[in-house]
Amino acid sequence: MEEISADVEAHFPEYLALLKRALSQPSIAAEGQGISEMAELLAEDLRAVGFAVEIVPTDGAPVLLAHMEGQRPERLLFYNHYDVQPVDPLELWEFPPFEPTVRDGKLFARGASDNKGAIYARLAAVESYLRVRGTLPLGLTWVIEGEEEIGSVHLHQFVEARKDALKNLLGCVWEAGGKDARERYEIALGCKGILYVELRARGAARDLHSANAAIVENPAWRLVWALNSLKGPDGRVRIPGFYDTVRPPTPAQRAALADWEFPEDEVRKLYGIDRFLDGLTGMALKERLIFGATCNIDGFHSGYGGPGSKTVLPAEVVAKLDFRLVPDQEPKQVVEALRKHLDAEGFSDVEIAWWEGEKPWAGDPEHPFVQTAIRAAERVYGHLPAILPMMAGTGPVYLLCGQFGTPMITAGVGYADSRAHSPNENIRLQDFAQGIKYIVAMFEEISGWLGKGD
Amino acid sequence: MEEISADVEAHFPEYLALLKRALSQPSIAAEGQGISEMAELLAEDLRAVGFAVEIVPTDGAPVLLAHMEGQRPERLLFYNHYDVQPVDPLELWEFPPFEPTVRDGKLFARGASDNKGAIYARLAAVESYLRVRGTLPLGLTWVIEGEEEIGSVHLHQFVEARKDALKNLLGCVWEAGGKDARERYEIALGCKGILYVELRARGAARDLHSANAAIVENPAWRLVWALNSLKGPDGRVRIPGFYDTVRPPTPAQRAALADWEFPEDEVRKLYGIDRFLDGLTGMALKERLIFGATCNIDGFHSGYGGPGSKTVLPAEVVAKLDFRLVPDQEPKQVVEALRKHLDAEGFSDVEIAWWEGEKPWAGDPEHPFVQTAIRAAERVYGHLPAILPMMAGTGPVYLLCGQFGTPMITAGVGYADSRAHSPNENIRLQDFAQGIKYIVAMFEEISGWLGKGD
Repeated sequence: MEEISADVEAHFPEYLALLKRALSQPSIAAEGQGISEMAELLAEDLRAVGFAVEIVPTDGAPVLLAHMEGQRPERLLFYNHYDVQPVDPLELWEFPPFEPTVRDGKLFARGASDNKGAIYARLAAVESYLRVRGTLPLGLTWVIEGEEEIGSVHLHQFVEARKDALKNLLGCVWEAGGKDARERYEIALGCKGILYVELRARGAARDLHSANAAIVENPAWRLVWALNSLKGPDGRVRIPGFYDTVRPPTPAQRAALADWEFPEDEVRKLYGIDRFLDGLTGMALKERLIFGATCNIDGFHSGYGGPGSKTVLPAEVVAKLDFRLVPDQEPKQVVEALRKHLDAEGFSDVEIAWWEGEKPWAGDPEHPFVQTAIRAAERVYGHLPAILPMMAGTGPVYLLCGQFGTPMITAGVGYADSRAHSPNENIRLQDFAQGIKYIVAMFEEISGWLGKGD
Repeated sequence: MEEISADVEAHFPEYLALLKRALSQPSIAAEGQGISEMAELLAEDLRAVGFAVEIVPTDGAPVLLAHMEGQRPERLLFYNHYDVQPVDPLELWEFPPFEPTVRDGKLFARGASDNKGAIYARLAAVESYLRVRGTLPLGLTWVIEGEEEIGSVHLHQFVEARKDALKNLLGCVWEAGGKDARERYEIALGCKGILYVELRARGAARDLHSANAAIVENPAWRLVWALNSLKGPDGRVRIPGFYDTVRPPTPAQRAALADWEFPEDEVRKLYGIDRFLDGLTGMALKERLIFGATCNIDGFHSGYGGPGSKTVLPAEVVAKLDFRLVPDQEPKQVVEALRKHLDAEGFSDVEIAWWEGEKPWAGDPEHPFVQTAIRAAERVYGHLPAILPMMAGTGPVYLLCGQFGTPMITAGVGYADSRAHSPNENIRLQDFAQGIKYIVAMFEEISGWLGKGD
């Protein structure tokens, strides 16, 4: 480790230069800007280090699939994405978002934290490892998609086409993460799933004078009543069977959660709220956040939305809902139960216009792969990391890992003020250097674990 | 009557030219276009006939107040408006909206039906009456506002300033109306009132990642539940006391309603609906339309409304509601009951951001003033008119008439295909001529009624 660490430090300026070049290339999936250019640039950088790279087309952005053989036959999976969020509002940026700028030990650019910094930390780790040891200790499969920021909409096409590359993997190092507000390194082991539905109700063929509300059904009322039937002020989802498949957290998951610190005061202040939902606090709050299924109104739009008063009987109303799912809830089962529930409650006129979903995946903190990640973090960061068995958000973890039984851990180079998705996104150079060393340490820890098994 | 009718016919080309000149002047209240120019032009035309005209300023468009003395001390009130609706979508007009064009006996222009045609029919009637008889049979007070199409927002300032001019009036000839789809002339005697409220609920200080829905209140849910507490699928408004002050229609009002034809099939076809609310039909449908109070969602907006899926926990949600009120419901009482109800149901966090209201006013078909209007219609149109004790919509009838105990009738020159508020607004020249004669007939009928009383 010391020898490789020294190599990382010696070549740090080159690694930083490579990252800056990648950050200079816009790659905004939502706007279709620079996507193929970024895929080419990244493929070039991966090949330069020795990866065999395939650019796998999809109906959207291509997915990079990179391979490198190692000393052992076992293979590790890396998952990242080369796309970034849009930059609006541009006027709030201190430096141009695609002109990476180092100031006070921080590197500012769109994508620095989410997640080109993590990509190039991994690339640097491989390069330093190879320079010192000649080969990786185990094989590496690297999937880098270009649509993560728009919901990984075509990743399933890649998975379908390259299923074999995703089977029998030792574990996955997922994108995202870093240090929390108290500088503690944090590792997550999974993601909630999601069911996203668009509900629609229709009334007359066009908007009518609201005097007609006396005799013509208003679809906005229909949808209000339908939504009310889904969840009441007690917060419980009323769809029959919704909670039936929920698996309670294991003792190890619960212990990890107890050890994880959630900065309640800071979050309340940041969000501008007096209290959390239902007055939750402490362990109950953490359990709800991490292991609680939700039913959220993402959008509800109907009729007049301008200033002042305008009377109208709207012809149509659309609501968008997301259900964050926890193991073992399944999006397909929930949407079927939702349809049945709406019908049973008298809302067969309320249409499920379309839906999409991802399955949830929670990890086991006691899994030996997770344990290697914990030991690597302790070596590099000097303390035991916080372990989050599942993230409150959703990503394609089930798609890439869960369905193949591949355990996952997150590894990132962000910190509490990294401002991912916001103006002035940045990472600290020291976190980038530590992020490189963390991957090196993981190679060594996995190597040790596999060695013991021989 | 015959002598005056002959005068009307002899001078019809001049009357039409005057109307066309007025229709050439845009006067779009919503866009503030041509308002003062139109007020000046109209004042000029009124003065030319012999009216004493005052242009009464308000914080919005000025209100014209015109006076003419008659043989008797009693005075009649005319109410009209000189503003028109916007012309969008312009591409659907067959002729430019402010270049009045006669084609196939129809006059096409924005405002032809709503309601410059009615204004100039009245002006023509006064001119012909004066030319033949020398003076009007009774005094005339004429109020012509310039903001009807945007809710008569400053008319109350005029009423406050000129209250004395509105007291002790015999009756009011309101704007609007004409012939129905079966060519029957229709007279309305009042308007529903309205309470318009904007409800608002707030959550976090800004939109959050929807993963936070597990622990942060979503204001869209709060408003869904609050709205659900106002009205359920049975359609009954649940605000305590809402129906307490509702006065049932009198036998005469009910008889008028029974005689009024509502073209159910045509309306269902026009609106693109299979059935009316609650499957209503016949007399029950007419009663609900004309005498039923409503609670309508005009708008509900929160969170993401674009295509596809975006997860967000919205920070704020706004709903706009209108309650159409019937005698003797009062907007102020209803909004107070609404506030109490929300508090009692646990929604004190749901804010009534602002409200505005107008009181309802229903007329008595047996009132002698209304009877003069019926007789005048029978003389001019050759059949008994349909009588609507109240319109399903709302106008400032209580403000100008109701509060002073002035009975009202509507008189217009429109027909079923007049397309008020739409492209290709038009009137038929024969309806314009009949509209002039109808006002003459009303002068004579009122004169006869008052003469009997002497």
